[in-house]
Amino acid sequence: MSIPDFDDVKAAHKRIRPYIHRTPILTSSFFNTLTGAELYFKCENFQKAGAFKARGAVNAVFGLSDQEAAAGVATHSSGNHGQALSYAAGRRGIKATVVMPDNAPEPKKAAVIGYGGQVVECAPSNAARENTLRRLIEQSGAEFVHPYNDSRVIAGQATCALEVIEDTDHLDALIAPIGGGGLVAGTCLTASNLMPGTPVFAAEPKNADDAWQSLQAGRIIERDAPDTIADGLKTNLAPLTWHFVSSQVKDILLATEQEIIDAMFLTWERMKIIIEPSCAVPLAAIINNRNLFAGLKVGVILTGGNVDLNKLPWLKS
Amino acid sequence: MSIPDFDDVKAAHKRIRPYIHRTPILTSSFFNTLTGAELYFKCENFQKAGAFKARGAVNAVFGLSDQEAAAGVATHSSGNHGQALSYAAGRRGIKATVVMPDNAPEPKKAAVIGYGGQVVECAPSNAARENTLRRLIEQSGAEFVHPYNDSRVIAGQATCALEVIEDTDHLDALIAPIGGGGLVAGTCLTASNLMPGTPVFAAEPKNADDAWQSLQAGRIIERDAPDTIADGLKTNLAPLTWHFVSSQVKDILLATEQEIIDAMFLTWERMKIIIEPSCAVPLAAIINNRNLFAGLKVGVILTGGNVDLNKLPWLKS
Repeated sequence: MSIPDFDDVKAAHKRIRPYIHRTPILTSSFFNTLTGAELYFKCENFQKAGAFKARGAVNAVFGLSDQEAAAGVATHSSGNHGQALSYAAGRRGIKATVVMPDNAPEPKKAAVIGYGGQVVECAPSNAARENTLRRLIEQSGAEFVHPYNDSRVIAGQATCALEVIEDTDHLDALIAPIGGGGLVAGTCLTASNLMPGTPVFAAEPKNADDAWQSLQAGRIIERDAPDTIADGLKTNLAPLTWHFVSSQVKDILLATEQEIIDAMFLTWERMKIIIEPSCAVPLAAIINNRNLFAGLKVGVILTGGNVDLNKLPWLKS
Repeated sequence: MSIPDFDDVKAAHKRIRPYIHRTPILTSSFFNTLTGAELYFKCENFQKAGAFKARGAVNAVFGLSDQEAAAGVATHSSGNHGQALSYAAGRRGIKATVVMPDNAPEPKKAAVIGYGGQVVECAPSNAARENTLRRLIEQSGAEFVHPYNDSRVIAGQATCALEVIEDTDHLDALIAPIGGGGLVAGTCLTASNLMPGTPVFAAEPKNADDAWQSLQAGRIIERDAPDTIADGLKTNLAPLTWHFVSSQVKDILLATEQEIIDAMFLTWERMKIIIEPSCAVPLAAIINNRNLFAGLKVGVILTGGNVDLNKLPWLKS
């Protein structure tokens, strides 16, 4: 699969526009005072299906020919990409199948089904997941839409930074969380075209620091089953995202579990918006690295708000 | 005190603009499908100090002459108006004193103090509250800014509907929660000038239905210490707000405690925004009155987001 370029991003933005929200950008004088920076929060937690993932999924689904689309789409995901693909397929009126480990939380399965998709369960191992998906695709002819190692998905995620840049005035930096790297790759792609030289930072849980390690080592380092509350950021980089991350990310900043929870709580309390743990990592990193950002205008991508409201990390269960 | 007119509203909007957010209007296809209506949610939960109350308080504080302002402002409030007045006074650099019952929750006191105001405690009775405030004003010469029976406050709250109307295209109805009636009075004032004939609805907890009873009786009916989770809506109407409510409100719709909690939970879950119980009452009323709103474009004022995140009504404590 080819590396996406900025024309792909512009095409993606046009393609997905009818199916996504142009999410607002919020500011918070509380966080500006706390960090010494001027923060512009892009609220993808308000996005369709509750996360930026709708951008990439919609771009992939609506980029298919009618013939390709007829067999439906499939993926493996126990998180936001599964919901997003289900949402996108529903809007096009085609079938989406999402392979999930049989121990995935019921609400995650319910969300995929709620958007009209189908869940296929497998044993909770990488091998089972890949075998199940392969068999399913062989039988149905469905189009595989990888959560991030997919140029259509990266081009879709890149539209988020496009809107941030269009809706703000001369940012000094951008920051987004990094898991598989689809959003950060897309952010680099857009930033390098629209405001070359402006640094793009990624933020990662210390407990799942495979991207940070990869950047140190100069090659993709994988970490198996990391334990972090930021469950959207457990995935490892892949060739297409590494292409951008390795060459264009200014730095990867880390945050501990407690710092992530604290940043999440503060965001709920002061901004009155619901963000999921993965989404709080960049803010935790900015709070941790005051000297790096003080005095700068920083675009912060708030990635998603899919949280189980009955299980909040600051409440004892 | 005189009844405010629409010129007061326009002047208020100009006066408060530097100190308040022009809050966004969000839509939700989930709630549109659920209700059959087209809902436009005005997010005053994102407002300064977490509620629309900042509008009225800022208008009152910044409308004072320098001489009047020098002695500071004072009020009684254990809720959002106290925080809002403290915020407004802080922005003008004057003193705010808020009388609160000594059994008010610590976070409420902390919020007033956090914005620079002073809390004066009294015994938890209406008589103690009024005596304490009267004595305090006699001693200090502070300007009393009533939470709602105040034309400056009503004109300030009226700017909220002004923005809703400016930022949407031909609404068929407006709805807001009703406690003392400041917001609803202001909404009537603006709507009757900018889109005469368009109905304004108020929504009230069944457990604190004094405004509903007043509308039936044709005079202000007071209810003492009603028990509802919607703690911002326990107050009774007053002459200035009754002037508008009695003649211009189309109807007052009621919601039970469970309906309020359900609407609040659904808003958090589907819209990813934090609203307080009082703020969920209009949506609960719309869900309850599908036939009244189906097919209409409805502006819904989300009034505030000040919630104790450690005590959520759907979680057992």
